[in-house]
Amino acid sequence: MELIYLNTVWIVLAAAMVLFMEGGFCLLESGLVRTKNAVNVTMKIFVDLTVGILAFWLIGFGIMYGEDAFGLMGTSLFGNPEKISLSIELPSAAFVLFQMGFAVASISIVSGAVAERMSFKAYIVTVVLICMIIYPLSGHWIWNNEGWLANLGMKDFAGSSAIHALGGFVAFAIAKILGPRKGRFNSDGSTNVFAPSNIPLASSGAFVLWFGWFAFNAGSTLDASNTSLATIALNTLLAGASGGTAALFMTMKKFGKADPSMTINGVLAGLVAITAGCAFVSQWSAIIIGVASGVIVIYATLLVDALKVDDPVGAVAVHGFNGVFGTIAVGLFDTSQGLFTTGDFSLIKVQLLGSIVVVGWGLIGGTFIAKVCELTVGLRASVREEEEGLDMSYHGIPAYNELELFTDLPTSLYDFEETTGIIVAPANNKKSLDKPPS
Amino acid sequence: MELIYLNTVWIVLAAAMVLFMEGGFCLLESGLVRTKNAVNVTMKIFVDLTVGILAFWLIGFGIMYGEDAFGLMGTSLFGNPEKISLSIELPSAAFVLFQMGFAVASISIVSGAVAERMSFKAYIVTVVLICMIIYPLSGHWIWNNEGWLANLGMKDFAGSSAIHALGGFVAFAIAKILGPRKGRFNSDGSTNVFAPSNIPLASSGAFVLWFGWFAFNAGSTLDASNTSLATIALNTLLAGASGGTAALFMTMKKFGKADPSMTINGVLAGLVAITAGCAFVSQWSAIIIGVASGVIVIYATLLVDALKVDDPVGAVAVHGFNGVFGTIAVGLFDTSQGLFTTGDFSLIKVQLLGSIVVVGWGLIGGTFIAKVCELTVGLRASVREEEEGLDMSYHGIPAYNELELFTDLPTSLYDFEETTGIIVAPANNKKSLDKPPS
Amino acid sequence: MELIYLNTVWIVLAAAMVLFMEGGFCLLESGLVRTKNAVNVTMKIFVDLTVGILAFWLIGFGIMYGEDAFGLMGTSLFGNPEKISLSIELPSAAFVLFQMGFAVASISIVSGAVAERMSFKAYIVTVVLICMIIYPLSGHWIWNNEGWLANLGMKDFAGSSAIHALGGFVAFAIAKILGPRKGRFNSDGSTNVFAPSNIPLASSGAFVLWFGWFAFNAGSTLDASNTSLATIALNTLLAGASGGTAALFMTMKKFGKADPSMTINGVLAGLVAITAGCAFVSQWSAIIIGVASGVIVIYATLLVDALKVDDPVGAVAVHGFNGVFGTIAVGLFDTSQGLFTTGDFSLIKVQLLGSIVVVGWGLIGGTFIAKVCELTVGLRASVREEEEGLDMSYHGIPAYNELELFTDLPTSLYDFEETTGIIVAPANNKKSLDKPPS
Repeated sequence: MELIYLNTVWIVLAAAMVLFMEGGFCLLESGLVRTKNAVNVTMKIFVDLTVGILAFWLIGFGIMYGEDAFGLMGTSLFGNPEKISLSIELPSAAFVLFQMGFAVASISIVSGAVAERMSFKAYIVTVVLICMIIYPLSGHWIWNNEGWLANLGMKDFAGSSAIHALGGFVAFAIAKILGPRKGRFNSDGSTNVFAPSNIPLASSGAFVLWFGWFAFNAGSTLDASNTSLATIALNTLLAGASGGTAALFMTMKKFGKADPSMTINGVLAGLVAITAGCAFVSQWSAIIIGVASGVIVIYATLLVDALKVDDPVGAVAVHGFNGVFGTIAVGLFDTSQGLFTTGDFSLIKVQLLGSIVVVGWGLIGGTFIAKVCELTVGLRASVREEEEGLDMSYHGIPAYNELELFTDLPTSLYDFEETTGIIVAPANNKKSLDKPPS
Repeated sequence: MELIYLNTVWIVLAAAMVLFMEGGFCLLESGLVRTKNAVNVTMKIFVDLTVGILAFWLIGFGIMYGEDAFGLMGTSLFGNPEKISLSIELPSAAFVLFQMGFAVASISIVSGAVAERMSFKAYIVTVVLICMIIYPLSGHWIWNNEGWLANLGMKDFAGSSAIHALGGFVAFAIAKILGPRKGRFNSDGSTNVFAPSNIPLASSGAFVLWFGWFAFNAGSTLDASNTSLATIALNTLLAGASGGTAALFMTMKKFGKADPSMTINGVLAGLVAITAGCAFVSQWSAIIIGVASGVIVIYATLLVDALKVDDPVGAVAVHGFNGVFGTIAVGLFDTSQGLFTTGDFSLIKVQLLGSIVVVGWGLIGGTFIAKVCELTVGLRASVREEEEGLDMSYHGIPAYNELELFTDLPTSLYDFEETTGIIVAPANNKKSLDKPPS
Repeated sequence: MELIYLNTVWIVLAAAMVLFMEGGFCLLESGLVRTKNAVNVTMKIFVDLTVGILAFWLIGFGIMYGEDAFGLMGTSLFGNPEKISLSIELPSAAFVLFQMGFAVASISIVSGAVAERMSFKAYIVTVVLICMIIYPLSGHWIWNNEGWLANLGMKDFAGSSAIHALGGFVAFAIAKILGPRKGRFNSDGSTNVFAPSNIPLASSGAFVLWFGWFAFNAGSTLDASNTSLATIALNTLLAGASGGTAALFMTMKKFGKADPSMTINGVLAGLVAITAGCAFVSQWSAIIIGVASGVIVIYATLLVDALKVDDPVGAVAVHGFNGVFGTIAVGLFDTSQGLFTTGDFSLIKVQLLGSIVVVGWGLIGGTFIAKVCELTVGLRASVREEEEGLDMSYHGIPAYNELELFTDLPTSLYDFEETTGIIVAPANNKKSLDKPPS
């Protein structure tokens, strides 16, 4: 039996699991935002998986993996990614499929940070720009064989930098320019924390993400004859467990409560931080990295707040800060070149350079996107839309209609105009309660 | 290493993913119906996966894959499906397992269309009849090597016809006979759209379905040495993405809102439409098929409404119409025999014939089922049951009990009669609020 | 191509699916408990997957699979599980990963039974003790090659005893000592059943568990060249389907309603019961075992109630009683040594002995854990904490904040003290409603 058969099955299944992570992002984000914006984050994930997929397939893939120009960008494979020739035993379609999952992950990071106040059309523009240009360009530098960071020897096995740090700092820049949600920061300098709308949903989102992460990291081998993929998966589990443990105990000690959002984000922080090094570090190093990431995510959250940048789900702290930390951690813990493990300074220098480049590129990219949106479709929802909630404003429907059982709520909240076939949602939910359709 | 080892792993995992799609149907349907019927759709999915599995295993499998009689039906393997002898290197148990997932998918399509007003006992009868007779019979024609449509050269790789179109038109016939939900169509000809009860749940159901669909389509190779399974999975992704993109943009343009239900159904429509052709068409064709399906699902929904057939989740538009479209699309885009790609008319004629046969059989089968129910257990819930909601009527429990935190609601809504061990739910939830157990 | 490559992929994917079952437990349990404790069960699952994973990795694995002492316990591999040498072609990291999923499953069984009134710190202690000592010790007896029950010939393929019966009876002992939730049993001997808070969530949890169970059972082959893994998966499906069918029809007949909780538990009972024998029995036996388990789970639930032990999710009935039944069923239906199939009494005697040992050990272990908690962090939540709900008491946040759309509820339920960075949840949710932050 040929190896390519096994590799095909392995990568197709891994890609399906990575793409399923979008379901995890959907659950996580719709659970962490306020009810009145829960549909909107859901719809943004659909934009990722529909418009984003097509944008990356059409243009982004070529920029990332096409024929290299000057170590800076690819210049071929546009509209035809499956023409790529791989040096490993894997059908090109499997490689393309797997890369699609990675590309949409990078945008889903952004969707959480801009939640509850970005215009829906601006989000669509954001998805297109990230999938076509921002993500594939730095992705080319890091992961294309001819990319300039790759040639310097940067190690980022499954994307702590290429995906997470990039997404996190694109998110930071856009969130900064967008400004905070109304009522988030008080004029006296104090801060309000909006309660997440649905903790069980958010938690199950975290479990879906964790499930997919095994494929995200171990699938990055792209080759099942690399039996270290079992170690990679084990490191992934240990780092996530350690990140969650650290965040859980810190919130118990520091806040007097075992905080759900922070524990979830501690797990995710551990997963993000091990993503670069999962193939290069020992199990004990994975645990240390995880514990550190669980601490980092809490202080990074407080720092982002202190900077008056509003990140409803903590995406910058989880993906941005821990993406950078994970990249640097490879330079510290790599079994063959790590500073702590071997005393060698060469790798850590490259990892630091790579981190700075990705953070800088993320900030530039995010700023660029925000400016494009401002000049075209508008970046931010109107005050009225934000106050009413983006669900009714952009999608004409609230997330939950569960009260009918207990009240005299009309079961139909819509009018349907036969003449045009248009579903007209009432402009305001309360209004529809006053005037139920008979 | 032998190929059969890899094939076993591949198909067992694919089957698990296909069976997991039932969880997706459960989430999707319980999110799209009204709260007072959310438990009932959930329980119907359990009927699919329990009663339906046993019915197909016992009888249906034999009718579908047993020894052929006249190209019309199988006549062996009853109560013993694993005795089948396969010409591929795969344990028969793996094949049986995978086929089980397909059979229950065909019923879960029906469960959505009849939601909110079918009697629960009638649904059990429906499941038994579909799994024992309706689905396996046309399945035999299309997928058994000796089936008459198979012998004519009909191409339906993973079941746009055999599963989706069949399920969709069985659903149409039953929904037509059942009649609409109370209040759905007004006497003046206008229509009320009931708001879905839980959009985040419905969305996550769509993501679970998409995840399973990779296995649904690529697993249909049944053979991992067929490396085109990567292309199949990629086409599946592209068609779903295109269907969702088309529906999303159309609702934005046509309705002024990015409609969640339509976007979800656009994704599913793309997935349904590519199911027949995923192994036979190019990536660009997959995108075209997807875009078309996203448009078709919107107009099909309006058409079903115009016919005064009430389909609460849009199952007929998604599975019925796009199942037919997907079957025909193979005749248009098949790389070796398609009308558009090669100018050859021979395949499209067979595909059209096959589509007509499946639609006709679906309508006959659905009518037969409805009549059997009417003559035995009764087809439709009583007016009182429907008004109260099927959850309390048939299952004695509401879907959500989330208000206790904010009110003085009694936390126990049940009385428990020690003498009989019977859990007695109050006939009416409001009543229990008036008389809380002390 | 070497077999070890395929085995690695198979077991890594199976392990990911088994670990994903934690997401299923999370959904199931948060759906079955009352709203005011839904966050708490969620957080307990996070404790399983974070603290529990580290505890088992550090100590438990060595006790279970380390060098044997007297057939009683392992004595090596502490903090270094991947040093284990396996006689099968599988990287040790893959084996460790898979075993981690099993260990946390055993605790998640307990988490449901102690829901709604156990102190959160006590639960953390419970997790540590189960993962470090209780589970690995009996696991050693049954699954280590040198374990004393293994040497007697006990057959427990994927853990009806080692995981489910053990977890179930540990849960029983702790739940007994904890005492019932306030209001559960009336002084006149009658019983109140608290309505589950969210049936759709609970149902989707069951589907996730079922999905993972295929990997749980078939993955226990640890070797993909064992093509019987397809039969194992098929038996798993049939037993779950039969258990659910039996419970569904029994509740319809006995209670007049198709009860969701019982149907879910019937499916899970079938899955638990087939776990020991999935590799040893025929398909028809799997169906018989499933049907029996669906009946057993109902009577076991009534029995646990009659014993005045409060088990909010039915974990003792599902995992405890059906774990024992499944273990005994191997002695009855094993194709080569079963009493019913061959008339041989030798295996059934060992299975009975093993069951008694595991039940006894579970009861001792659970009692030990409860006593340790009582002497250290305290076992039970205070009356005030229980009444307020564990969510606000321990985690400072309610599960659902969905009412903001319809009311003038403040969207921020928190005060955030800038000076300390502490997130302060209001001690009582109602209070915050009275005094919304301006």
